[in-house]
Amino acid sequence: MPVDSKTELTQYVSDSRQGYEADLKTLVDLAGVSMDPERKAEILRTADCAVSLIKRMGGEAEIVQTNGNPVVIGGFVSDKSAPTVLVYNHLDVQPADADEWKSQPFSMSVDGDTYRGRGSTDDKGPALAVLYAAAYAHKNKIAVNVKFVWELEEEIGSPNFEEFLKQNKEKLACDSVVISDTIWVSRERPAIPYGLRGLQGVLLKLKTGNKDVHSGLTGGLARNPIAELCQLIDQCHDAKTGKVNIPGFYDGAREPSDEEASQFVKSGFSIDGFKKAHELISLRTDDAKDGSLRIWAKPTFEVHGISGGYQGPGVKTIVPYQAEAKISMRLVSDQDPEKVFQAFSKFVKEKAPDVIIEKEGSLKPFLGEFKGPFADAAVGAMKDAFGVEPAFTREGGSIGAVVSMKEVLGKPIVFLGLSLPEHGYHAVNENFDWQQASGGIKMFVAYFGRLAKIK
Amino acid sequence: MPVDSKTELTQYVSDSRQGYEADLKTLVDLAGVSMDPERKAEILRTADCAVSLIKRMGGEAEIVQTNGNPVVIGGFVSDKSAPTVLVYNHLDVQPADADEWKSQPFSMSVDGDTYRGRGSTDDKGPALAVLYAAAYAHKNKIAVNVKFVWELEEEIGSPNFEEFLKQNKEKLACDSVVISDTIWVSRERPAIPYGLRGLQGVLLKLKTGNKDVHSGLTGGLARNPIAELCQLIDQCHDAKTGKVNIPGFYDGAREPSDEEASQFVKSGFSIDGFKKAHELISLRTDDAKDGSLRIWAKPTFEVHGISGGYQGPGVKTIVPYQAEAKISMRLVSDQDPEKVFQAFSKFVKEKAPDVIIEKEGSLKPFLGEFKGPFADAAVGAMKDAFGVEPAFTREGGSIGAVVSMKEVLGKPIVFLGLSLPEHGYHAVNENFDWQQASGGIKMFVAYFGRLAKIK
Repeated sequence: MPVDSKTELTQYVSDSRQGYEADLKTLVDLAGVSMDPERKAEILRTADCAVSLIKRMGGEAEIVQTNGNPVVIGGFVSDKSAPTVLVYNHLDVQPADADEWKSQPFSMSVDGDTYRGRGSTDDKGPALAVLYAAAYAHKNKIAVNVKFVWELEEEIGSPNFEEFLKQNKEKLACDSVVISDTIWVSRERPAIPYGLRGLQGVLLKLKTGNKDVHSGLTGGLARNPIAELCQLIDQCHDAKTGKVNIPGFYDGAREPSDEEASQFVKSGFSIDGFKKAHELISLRTDDAKDGSLRIWAKPTFEVHGISGGYQGPGVKTIVPYQAEAKISMRLVSDQDPEKVFQAFSKFVKEKAPDVIIEKEGSLKPFLGEFKGPFADAAVGAMKDAFGVEPAFTREGGSIGAVVSMKEVLGKPIVFLGLSLPEHGYHAVNENFDWQQASGGIKMFVAYFGRLAKIK
Repeated sequence: MPVDSKTELTQYVSDSRQGYEADLKTLVDLAGVSMDPERKAEILRTADCAVSLIKRMGGEAEIVQTNGNPVVIGGFVSDKSAPTVLVYNHLDVQPADADEWKSQPFSMSVDGDTYRGRGSTDDKGPALAVLYAAAYAHKNKIAVNVKFVWELEEEIGSPNFEEFLKQNKEKLACDSVVISDTIWVSRERPAIPYGLRGLQGVLLKLKTGNKDVHSGLTGGLARNPIAELCQLIDQCHDAKTGKVNIPGFYDGAREPSDEEASQFVKSGFSIDGFKKAHELISLRTDDAKDGSLRIWAKPTFEVHGISGGYQGPGVKTIVPYQAEAKISMRLVSDQDPEKVFQAFSKFVKEKAPDVIIEKEGSLKPFLGEFKGPFADAAVGAMKDAFGVEPAFTREGGSIGAVVSMKEVLGKPIVFLGLSLPEHGYHAVNENFDWQQASGGIKMFVAYFGRLAKIK
């Protein structure tokens, strides 16, 4: 990029700070929790707000209805002969328990360069960076068309997104796709992930009575649904090693190549850094290679919570009458969520016939390429903006929309994320910061510039 | 009892109904939850209220301080040459979650003969029946002195009661003791239990981080404290059979004699009746003998709840950073709670070295006699009042005060309870009823009359 335009871009970014922060606050303050049916109105307000934002920046935007939450689409499309890139973000967020936060999760606070609030990094902050970059590219006549797709059901596994893509294929026509909802290895080490884990969520429910009963009066004879679910969970997997004991669970799971595994280690992933970023005291392994494989390339069996019984202080000596275990399994290519669910169901039915199994969100794993012109453009844009060569890694999380976009749109997909481990995805005190936002605007401008030159 | 006094007593009971109901409401409306430190003021108000009630009925009463909650003592002591009986009840109650109740747990509702509210059957209703009976006995010059001991820490395992007994031995001097805090086999079948299970409560805590983290980002590498506690719980016992796998756990546990076991079966205990009373759908056994042994004569390992992680609707894909398992073990004679705790701690330390073990309430099991003059008087009084011969059973629950009274006072102990299985001890919609209250007043009057004749 010539010095003039670099200076100009730097000035643009600097001038944009106040507007960016105000817009981010407007978005974060809307508690669009897709998991909570009572927040539906705030989901709809988020969509309206997003359309207004894009239009105010000079773009086109509209709300597209689906069988679930709507999707916002928009963009800056001016040059029909130029290549078109479709950038995916999402604006729905995880729930947040205000009691556990330093500040109100749904009232963004600005603390120096830090923006704290639910959705700030996942994924409202990055979405806004894309918008500010696209507006700049448009104004400066970079020969690329940018389209936005802002989903509002990502946190519940994108149940209607594939159908939305099929219904709106023409509007979404593009030459390549960017997903902007991923996390770097560390602040010093940008990352371009090329794989995602899939997911199969399940609820296990067991009801053995109609009310909690006295453990003195009934204990020994009454069944204990919490204890029985504990037993079942222990039969499913070894909690210490993470090894899953369900026959057929690992079917199709590909081991990463030696080259990939060595890239993971070279990415800068470290056990200490990981512990610090996630505030974890101890891990299942202290070996960096094993650690990176565990989060990026291996499937899991995870218990998110067991509800039922007594949750208050001390010990209340009841026998619970019902219990629910909240479980999900992360999956890697080429595990098939449906087959995993079948294997799981068969195992549960054998071990605990009267446990009710409810299927929750299901996402296929994704494994892309990490070579080619789009990957090269992404590497270049990250170096331009942040001065550092990114690592090729994978993501341990799941973005259901990615598999759908691959299948429906059939275009190359590149991941350009801005979040950092310490931003606290899905955690309390989630935050984003101006360093990543401002670098992000520059990165997307650089990426659009490089796209314009791809034949 | 001569016909005259029978008629007179019937009239007294009938005349007392309005006052009894008003007094029970006054007591139930005081939410003296001993487990909840924030309810301390209501515990103290309960004590004040109890003293007023006894004095209004013509007795003497005072509040005795302890290192914990106070104890109310009182009675009708007039004839120094007559035998003295000490009757134990407690006025503290279990917590109650108003959302789950048909009516407010701490505002007693009267529905025909039924009194619904927390503490109505456990143990405020029976305490008031004793008070009304003692007032009658006093007025009618039955040659017996009745002393009341109303504890306010029973539901937290009577941590200060033994010290209270030692400090107040003279005031509590008596010839025999009645415990009035137990449950019949069914409404048609009064029961005199002669054994109680002991208890050892424990909390298991595991903390592996400082906040919940994203299971995509960290799952597989982060430890899962809920899953690890599930594993540990499964190692401790078989949830399906109830068998405990902790070495040394069963040391000292006496098998009941064939005579006792056959009494249990003859008591009228039935699997169907038990299921119905406790609203249980299925049990660990459908055999009545096995069932009665399980609740009355065998120790247990019970999980009351697992806190930590996500408890809301659906699946939130976090890895929890901490978990707490709330556990208690019911014990039978001659298991020693301290030895059981040591065996448990050793086992946990071997299997899960970084799990923190916190000792909760501890109660020794109790096994008394079911023959002799006091047992005979109890049988007679129950027949007088309810027209049915009571069964000798045991209680599966624990009353810490009993072992202390046996050890400190050294007098014969008889159990005269009034609660029914369907009254819902420790459960939602706890209730008591006029049939048991009115029969109870008659029963205690009859018992006092029979005591007066024991040489």
